Amino acid sequence: MVITSNINSDRLWRTLMELGKIGASCEEAEGVTRLSLSREELEAKHYIYQLMKEIGLDAHMDPVGNVIGTLQGAEPQAPVVMVGSHTDTVFHGGRFDGALGVLGAIEAVRTIKEANIPLTHAIEIVSFTDEEGSRFGTGYIGSKAMAGMLKETIFDLKDKDGVSYRQAFIDAEFNPENYKDVIRQPGDIKAYIEMHIEQAKVLEELDLPIGIVTDIQGPVWLDVTLEGATDHAGATPMTMRKDVAVGVAEIVLAVENIALTYHGVGTVGIITLEPGAVNVIPGRTLFSIDVRHSDKGIRQQMVNDIYKKIEVVCKKRRLTSRIDVKKEVDPAVCSPKIVTLLEETCHALRYPVKKLPCGAGHDSLIMSKVTDIGMIFVRSKDGISHNPKEWSSQSDCAIGTELLFHTLVKLAQ
Amino acid sequence: MVITSNINSDRLWRTLMELGKIGASCEEAEGVTRLSLSREELEAKHYIYQLMKEIGLDAHMDPVGNVIGTLQGAEPQAPVVMVGSHTDTVFHGGRFDGALGVLGAIEAVRTIKEANIPLTHAIEIVSFTDEEGSRFGTGYIGSKAMAGMLKETIFDLKDKDGVSYRQAFIDAEFNPENYKDVIRQPGDIKAYIEMHIEQAKVLEELDLPIGIVTDIQGPVWLDVTLEGATDHAGATPMTMRKDVAVGVAEIVLAVENIALTYHGVGTVGIITLEPGAVNVIPGRTLFSIDVRHSDKGIRQQMVNDIYKKIEVVCKKRRLTSRIDVKKEVDPAVCSPKIVTLLEETCHALRYPVKKLPCGAGHDSLIMSKVTDIGMIFVRSKDGISHNPKEWSSQSDCAIGTELLFHTLVKLAQ
Repeated sequence: MVITSNINSDRLWRTLMELGKIGASCEEAEGVTRLSLSREELEAKHYIYQLMKEIGLDAHMDPVGNVIGTLQGAEPQAPVVMVGSHTDTVFHGGRFDGALGVLGAIEAVRTIKEANIPLTHAIEIVSFTDEEGSRFGTGYIGSKAMAGMLKETIFDLKDKDGVSYRQAFIDAEFNPENYKDVIRQPGDIKAYIEMHIEQAKVLEELDLPIGIVTDIQGPVWLDVTLEGATDHAGATPMTMRKDVAVGVAEIVLAVENIALTYHGVGTVGIITLEPGAVNVIPGRTLFSIDVRHSDKGIRQQMVNDIYKKIEVVCKKRRLTSRIDVKKEVDPAVCSPKIVTLLEETCHALRYPVKKLPCGAGHDSLIMSKVTDIGMIFVRSKDGISHNPKEWSSQSDCAIGTELLFHTLVKLAQ
Repeated sequence: MVITSNINSDRLWRTLMELGKIGASCEEAEGVTRLSLSREELEAKHYIYQLMKEIGLDAHMDPVGNVIGTLQGAEPQAPVVMVGSHTDTVFHGGRFDGALGVLGAIEAVRTIKEANIPLTHAIEIVSFTDEEGSRFGTGYIGSKAMAGMLKETIFDLKDKDGVSYRQAFIDAEFNPENYKDVIRQPGDIKAYIEMHIEQAKVLEELDLPIGIVTDIQGPVWLDVTLEGATDHAGATPMTMRKDVAVGVAEIVLAVENIALTYHGVGTVGIITLEPGAVNVIPGRTLFSIDVRHSDKGIRQQMVNDIYKKIEVVCKKRRLTSRIDVKKEVDPAVCSPKIVTLLEETCHALRYPVKKLPCGAGHDSLIMSKVTDIGMIFVRSKDGISHNPKEWSSQSDCAIGTELLFHTLVKLAQ
């Protein structure tokens, strides 16, 4: 029997299920879609804002749409303890990625407030804008704004329908022109803690409910365009073609091979062929590559190998290429002090301790630029995430939240 | 100096340029788009109808939108000589594919009429509906209807916007329910002649303006679906994935290899990945395969090899597959009598004679089921077609049309 005696497991679960209905498709198999600043995601932001108000926090949304709720501490000048995650999802995503971190933080802080635990430092819960990047092609918008890393060019990015990020912010009544007001100065934040589903099978295979993250792999995202020649699929002999489909096929297999060689990960998640007809040799392709490794130097070697392969394929097949680095995030190390604090808290609660690296990017990766970070992982069923089947049990969510509650108290006292 | 003394080269060229403006993008590089029954393609049908009326033909559009213009012969009971092609294009296509065959036929018949050449057989010019199949995924609709090969299920096919073929016909004020009225009986048609751009580089490399087609390769179109698992691109180790992108990549390269091995052609023109995000391992893909060979048996071996490869890839990568045969058209042989007539006419006109096979499918392929067929090829610049750069010179178009004129006269007298 695992102790989760402080936080209210049923209350946490109810909010998870409620938030999970926002953006949910009528078809269960299609899951939840809350793309950044969509109607659904704005409804989710409003839900979080209302919850924060309901439990008596000072709540507001900042100029880039981060939803912030503050439980004041005794010393207004002391740096805040920050905790949070995000409510946006990928297209056809699940109910736990991001949501658990925000709602777990709300449950933990609600428990602190109800128990009248005296705090020195304020605790700020933040639900960051657009962690996933699924609508405009680049993510971590809210946390980047806070870390002073947001570039103004981001606002010119457009979604599939041609709507700019600037326009989406304005339509949602935020003030993107004031994005610099969001920046926190060094010393403003004592620590940033994020609870998140694991999105892999390590905890499940060890039969453990939670884990403590030691470091976070940062992704490199490449947008690759290949140009060949659009020709008739019947009349053009194989040896006379400049076919981008066979070019991209070779590169996709090379990305897999390079990832295996360096013990990292590499993924091609988007491929478009133009003009895209069954009887036309495609003359243009745009595709994405996502490369990750916990060692920045090795990740660079992987990227270098991919560049070389693209060059070789294009030369052989008489294609031209353009590669745009869409995102490049440094891997991050979790604060050893916070890792130790989480370990000690687990021991005190008689929770098993498992330290592990994190393969996915999170807002904590960005926040590591301005403060010490720590992360709690909650077991994912079958390791599945970014998918309607994403699932963590009520009990596992409660255990993670109980650990979060004790850790926040220790950091803020 | 090549003789084109009967037909009016400038008049033919003017109509080609006029028709080429219908559906042309403001961006020259984007070419001409006249998808079947789109506003643009209906405008093109109307243009052809008006031209037919203008030169004094009996003109009408049949229930499936074929535009038909008839020059009556002396014997109303004699089988008609048919000549034509189509005015629909692929997405971002050119000004000659299909258009040259229709406008060349109009110019040739106009010349016959102006010269008051007495005919025994009527000549029917037909501009067939939807040869390309680029909007609803399957083509030869007008010629199939005429040959009695159209299946009623075709009307339930939907375009990218969810519009059914039936609805598109009704919106254009055609009568798809009367599609059987279009069928021609054996003996109704004496011959079907089609002039078309070559869409390859054979004539260009031999520096010849025109060619005589001996046989036509028929395509097999496969729609392949692979299902794997949608997972997080960062958190899922390479060895735990069920990634359809690497699966489709292996199959694309196998299609190329099989086509090279059998001296046929094989093309993957469409690939969609779902959910289609940079940081999500794609769990589902739909892609197309187009396979052609002038020998039906060898083509079947190619298709068999592709099926086997898909099975092997899916087994290795723990994916499931579904293969739908979207289209399967028998290769066709041109009538030896008509080939001889074309040869003799070339000799009489002092045109060079080049007989060659045809790699692309055409309405003549379908018409071969109900009558003798013959085809004239006109040189394509750089062999490019289905592309805004598609081009045949005014002189080459005129030479082909002059040959067509003489051939029609001999067939109809």
